[in-house]
Amino acid sequence: MSNKPDWVKALKPAGLPGTEILAAERKSSPIDVDGLAAFLFTQPILDRNHRILEILQAEPVFDKSSNYFRGRTERIKAALARGKRLQQLTELHGWSAEEYQVAYDLIGEPTPYGLHAGMFMVTLREQGTPAQHRLFLEKAQKYEMIGCYAQTELGHGSNVRGLETIATWNPHRKTFTLHSPSLTSSKWWIGSLGRTANHAVVIAQLIIDEVSYGPHPFVVQIRDLQTHQPLDNIYVGDIGPKFGFNTMDNGFLLLNNVEIPHENMLSRFSRVDALTNKYIRPSNPSLVYGTLTWVRSNIVLRSGAVLARGVTTAVRYCAVRKQFRRLDAASNSTSGTAETAVLNYSMVQYRLLPLLAATFALHFTGQNMIQLYQANQAAMNGPDRSKSNADILLAELHASSCALKAYTSTVAGEGLETCRRACGGHGYSSFAGVGSLYADYLPTLTWEGDNFMLTQQVSRYLLKIARQVVSEVDVNSSTHAAPGNQFSIHTATILANYRTKQSDTKVVPFDILGDDTSCLVDAFAWRVAYQTFEILRRHDDEGASWDSLLVSFWRLSTAYSQYLVVRNFHQVLSHPTAQISPPPRSDTMAVLHSLFRLNALYCLSNESSEFLTSGACTAKVLDTLREERLLPLLSEVRPHAVKLVDAWKISDWQLDSSLGRADGRVYEDLFYRASENNPLNDIIFDPSPNSTTLFKTRSSRGPSSKL
Amino acid sequence: MSNKPDWVKALKPAGLPGTEILAAERKSSPIDVDGLAAFLFTQPILDRNHRILEILQAEPVFDKSSNYFRGRTERIKAALARGKRLQQLTELHGWSAEEYQVAYDLIGEPTPYGLHAGMFMVTLREQGTPAQHRLFLEKAQKYEMIGCYAQTELGHGSNVRGLETIATWNPHRKTFTLHSPSLTSSKWWIGSLGRTANHAVVIAQLIIDEVSYGPHPFVVQIRDLQTHQPLDNIYVGDIGPKFGFNTMDNGFLLLNNVEIPHENMLSRFSRVDALTNKYIRPSNPSLVYGTLTWVRSNIVLRSGAVLARGVTTAVRYCAVRKQFRRLDAASNSTSGTAETAVLNYSMVQYRLLPLLAATFALHFTGQNMIQLYQANQAAMNGPDRSKSNADILLAELHASSCALKAYTSTVAGEGLETCRRACGGHGYSSFAGVGSLYADYLPTLTWEGDNFMLTQQVSRYLLKIARQVVSEVDVNSSTHAAPGNQFSIHTATILANYRTKQSDTKVVPFDILGDDTSCLVDAFAWRVAYQTFEILRRHDDEGASWDSLLVSFWRLSTAYSQYLVVRNFHQVLSHPTAQISPPPRSDTMAVLHSLFRLNALYCLSNESSEFLTSGACTAKVLDTLREERLLPLLSEVRPHAVKLVDAWKISDWQLDSSLGRADGRVYEDLFYRASENNPLNDIIFDPSPNSTTLFKTRSSRGPSSKL
Repeated sequence: MSNKPDWVKALKPAGLPGTEILAAERKSSPIDVDGLAAFLFTQPILDRNHRILEILQAEPVFDKSSNYFRGRTERIKAALARGKRLQQLTELHGWSAEEYQVAYDLIGEPTPYGLHAGMFMVTLREQGTPAQHRLFLEKAQKYEMIGCYAQTELGHGSNVRGLETIATWNPHRKTFTLHSPSLTSSKWWIGSLGRTANHAVVIAQLIIDEVSYGPHPFVVQIRDLQTHQPLDNIYVGDIGPKFGFNTMDNGFLLLNNVEIPHENMLSRFSRVDALTNKYIRPSNPSLVYGTLTWVRSNIVLRSGAVLARGVTTAVRYCAVRKQFRRLDAASNSTSGTAETAVLNYSMVQYRLLPLLAATFALHFTGQNMIQLYQANQAAMNGPDRSKSNADILLAELHASSCALKAYTSTVAGEGLETCRRACGGHGYSSFAGVGSLYADYLPTLTWEGDNFMLTQQVSRYLLKIARQVVSEVDVNSSTHAAPGNQFSIHTATILANYRTKQSDTKVVPFDILGDDTSCLVDAFAWRVAYQTFEILRRHDDEGASWDSLLVSFWRLSTAYSQYLVVRNFHQVLSHPTAQISPPPRSDTMAVLHSLFRLNALYCLSNESSEFLTSGACTAKVLDTLREERLLPLLSEVRPHAVKLVDAWKISDWQLDSSLGRADGRVYEDLFYRASENNPLNDIIFDPSPNSTTLFKTRSSRGPSSKL
Repeated sequence: MSNKPDWVKALKPAGLPGTEILAAERKSSPIDVDGLAAFLFTQPILDRNHRILEILQAEPVFDKSSNYFRGRTERIKAALARGKRLQQLTELHGWSAEEYQVAYDLIGEPTPYGLHAGMFMVTLREQGTPAQHRLFLEKAQKYEMIGCYAQTELGHGSNVRGLETIATWNPHRKTFTLHSPSLTSSKWWIGSLGRTANHAVVIAQLIIDEVSYGPHPFVVQIRDLQTHQPLDNIYVGDIGPKFGFNTMDNGFLLLNNVEIPHENMLSRFSRVDALTNKYIRPSNPSLVYGTLTWVRSNIVLRSGAVLARGVTTAVRYCAVRKQFRRLDAASNSTSGTAETAVLNYSMVQYRLLPLLAATFALHFTGQNMIQLYQANQAAMNGPDRSKSNADILLAELHASSCALKAYTSTVAGEGLETCRRACGGHGYSSFAGVGSLYADYLPTLTWEGDNFMLTQQVSRYLLKIARQVVSEVDVNSSTHAAPGNQFSIHTATILANYRTKQSDTKVVPFDILGDDTSCLVDAFAWRVAYQTFEILRRHDDEGASWDSLLVSFWRLSTAYSQYLVVRNFHQVLSHPTAQISPPPRSDTMAVLHSLFRLNALYCLSNESSEFLTSGACTAKVLDTLREERLLPLLSEVRPHAVKLVDAWKISDWQLDSSLGRADGRVYEDLFYRASENNPLNDIIFDPSPNSTTLFKTRSSRGPSSKL
């Protein structure tokens, strides 16, 4: 809006400025923000992230000020330009894959190249032979070949074995014919396919001599390298707008008997022998297993950081926003005449501060997953370990990554929406920045294993271990790993412990409110073991069908995840010196201990019936938990809330939120965005229902238009 | 996309067509769809809705096929055109306010005239004097004056007393000066204000002789009636894009000492005497109370219908969608080779079917609220009832409307998201239609009383009644209403019952699994009473502060709402002949009884710890509830799911969903929408990161563009 009158320019927000409010919040807490941030991330990583942020902020193409106003076509156009510049900067600065990812996250929205870097190149590298690396990967690295990963179909997602696309081996011509036999066999949801890619790794059922050998990966060129038009017998396009993720061209693909050379089947693991026309089985299928575990572990790690963006916005805004005077004790009289910060209300604390605690719990859990994965990979390649040991360790890692992927992405996704609502009416504005983050994050709950589907795999593993415990097979002795060792199968340990202690009435209930916080971890472990053996009894002894147990599996997987999260947070606080960076000051560590209790007890309170049923806690303790423990914990954490979110070191540029501004100037920013940039304000409506025009006058952006 | 090749046109979905699947679903259930629909809505209402649907479908301006592709400016342009046509049709067909609302709901998105009809005219009518009706309302009815309702400010929402805008009485000129003293006093979120309205009812603090008399309504002209440009000293515009509701021009408004005549203060209830310059107090403040109750009762009624749209889509799609073969009992072998419908999995049933049951429970609850409100309004105007009786009845209605507004809109909002996720990956596509519905519905959780704020009002009322019960004041005898009578204060009845029975060990636990379903209602009532007296003790006896009880208030209000919902559903099924339409056939009624149990027991199972703590149920019953009762109930309801959603009679046109199509052609529709209309597919990307152009060729919709 042009011509803002002087009297408007002169207006200031009423009351104490947000800047002063947040300054006072920061002054009143002793939290060592920089020390805590280094403890979370390490100082070199923080420095690196800051360096990348400065590079991006200096580039006009990454300017975010129009993001919230754009329609889909404009948004994807901007995203394409940004993707190009990101790749140029990656070249220029020689960024590693990790640094590229940091930049990608800071830009804050997917680019149409996302799946080229994230999946196409990874698949070529991991599933291609050295010869195929030369043929495809080298060109992909130079963006001479731009690709995507085409697995999901219109009719099939999670059930990969049900995919309909076929790749038939032609024994005489030594080629494969790829074909989409039905409408439902159309590839669908494939990121970077709709408009960007000129190649695809297509997952298709391999058919040799009329026998199907299951899904395999094939490299297929889909668009001309010069004109970028689809090749003959290829029908490809964008699948249309989505709830979020609209800067990505998720696409569809139909293939009409497209013939490709023998060398286009990625054949590091299994292949077709061109001489004998025979299928050669994969040498080690568990390696593929490993990649999935890696992808899921990264989702776990990212969940804390994503949730932290919503919590940062909500905590800062709820500290600045004042509403109502607070009612005093029994009298119901109000204390003074000043309104109080929304964050001072116990109801708001109860919604937000457990999520603040969860950001740390999820972050440490994600770090632990990544470390375990890396250590295990190293050990698998080492000389000492037999294949069977490696397999069971990988199975444990796989199960916990499935459980935690499902649980932590649900907590983060639903937590973002809780943060948005805690911002009241303004949370609904695009300028809050939380709604778009939520919408873009939601696919994480479905992809890489639907969050409900995964819980079956987790339960299958827990039942398997439980059966070994019942048969008195000592899994840990066979892996030569002592309990507590990072390579121990601690699922076996907690199940075996439960079996041993089950009849000992002195063991349960646990003293969850006592000084020894390991009792809290034990209570979570006990509940997992109780549920595992209950389900084992119903399934193995009583013959309950698999389908009838699906809800119980979901509950079990959730219980297992909550145990892992509580355990990981506990481990970090018990051995803070084991982290890469030194622990922050003791006053800061004390607040982390409060966050640990808050996270564990809030979770326990919400799931209290399961802790009661399992005997881990008594009804008496659970009944008073909320009033006598949780509310005091919320009061303990409250003064540090703003500095705790500061320690996440999320820049204003990344947040892109009026409400989450680090300087507290929320009202000025909302007003500025609404009145300065908003293209709708350039259009003059003709409001009469009976007029034949929609707009009064022609303006720069909103042309006059007939009905 | 032009030129679809013949081989693409020839493709069909694999397997049984969706049309046949849904036909088989419908054939296998005896549900009397038309009878049930009439029982829900009455046949004349269904006929009327169908007539209006046909009128709208015949108008090209309401064509929905481009909705999901448009950016905000295009969308609001279309919505303006639709709003105009809707008003023309309303004139043409002489539609009542109710019929206008039906058409508005069928169009499926707000129009910029929404607040003119919904709030501006209502406020003029209810708060204006007859003289003001002639001055303002008559012009508003003819759309010569187009208005909005400007209450919320940038800095204040729920706390109306904290509003900053002031209206100062000028005793000599007999005028008011309206003024925005700060940036935070800017009106904000005001629907229809941003670009459409030329008048506003502005809520401002009335100041007479430097004394404030609190917020009052003033009619202010804000735009020129010819040019539609803002008047002098008015700064007004649209507040920018939002998470949803983007076809509405929510606006901001700043006033710089704008003077308006004496007659522009709406003064049916309170006013300024122009002769004496004195404030005249309102004669009956509880009438305003009544309007809020009416608005909230309508949100309750609408919650069932909104949720039903999501459930209809999810149930139909999950019946059509097949994924995986089902695992059999203990053997874990699969049954046959055919994949099974997703709706056959107990995990999916557990997520969707309780929501299906909830749609009916919410609908009957909403109907009951509306009936009670109307009966009470009639009684209040009747000769027999004293003012004090009317006041306490209105207070009961007010409390239950607050509780149910908060609860039912939360259930509907969160239920929609559950439905969207239950649709798997395709639920994320805009073409699913659930995401946009969810996004547009979400403000309902915040407006007309934030869902958390409201629970304080509910609890305050319950505590007040509890104190009367403790003091042995018989509220119901003072209202001359016998318990069970529709005018009885049944909150008093359940609290008094609890006090009487509390010491009687034979009363609790309730036989919630027995044949007499009234025991279920009693269990819900018992839990409410237990929690009320617990909170009363902590607040009145132990001196707990109001703030420390906010979480308990929220729990109490939720418990009270769940009781009301269970009770209302039970009442309809116990006395089906009391409904306007005759009950459906007995086989259909039997399924409704299963839905009643499913709704009540699912809720009870989720809140089991509260039922246990209150003594309403035993741990033993609760432990086995899910496996032994809920899962069998899900199996009972499953065969009828498709016909039960059919009974909601939601047209394909209103749903606008590929997944929710009544004919089951989900894959054809997804493919059609992606490949035919999608403007992104007219743009040819230039995918090289180092090229200087974004697009390869100029096309009709996507121009070639430099970086």
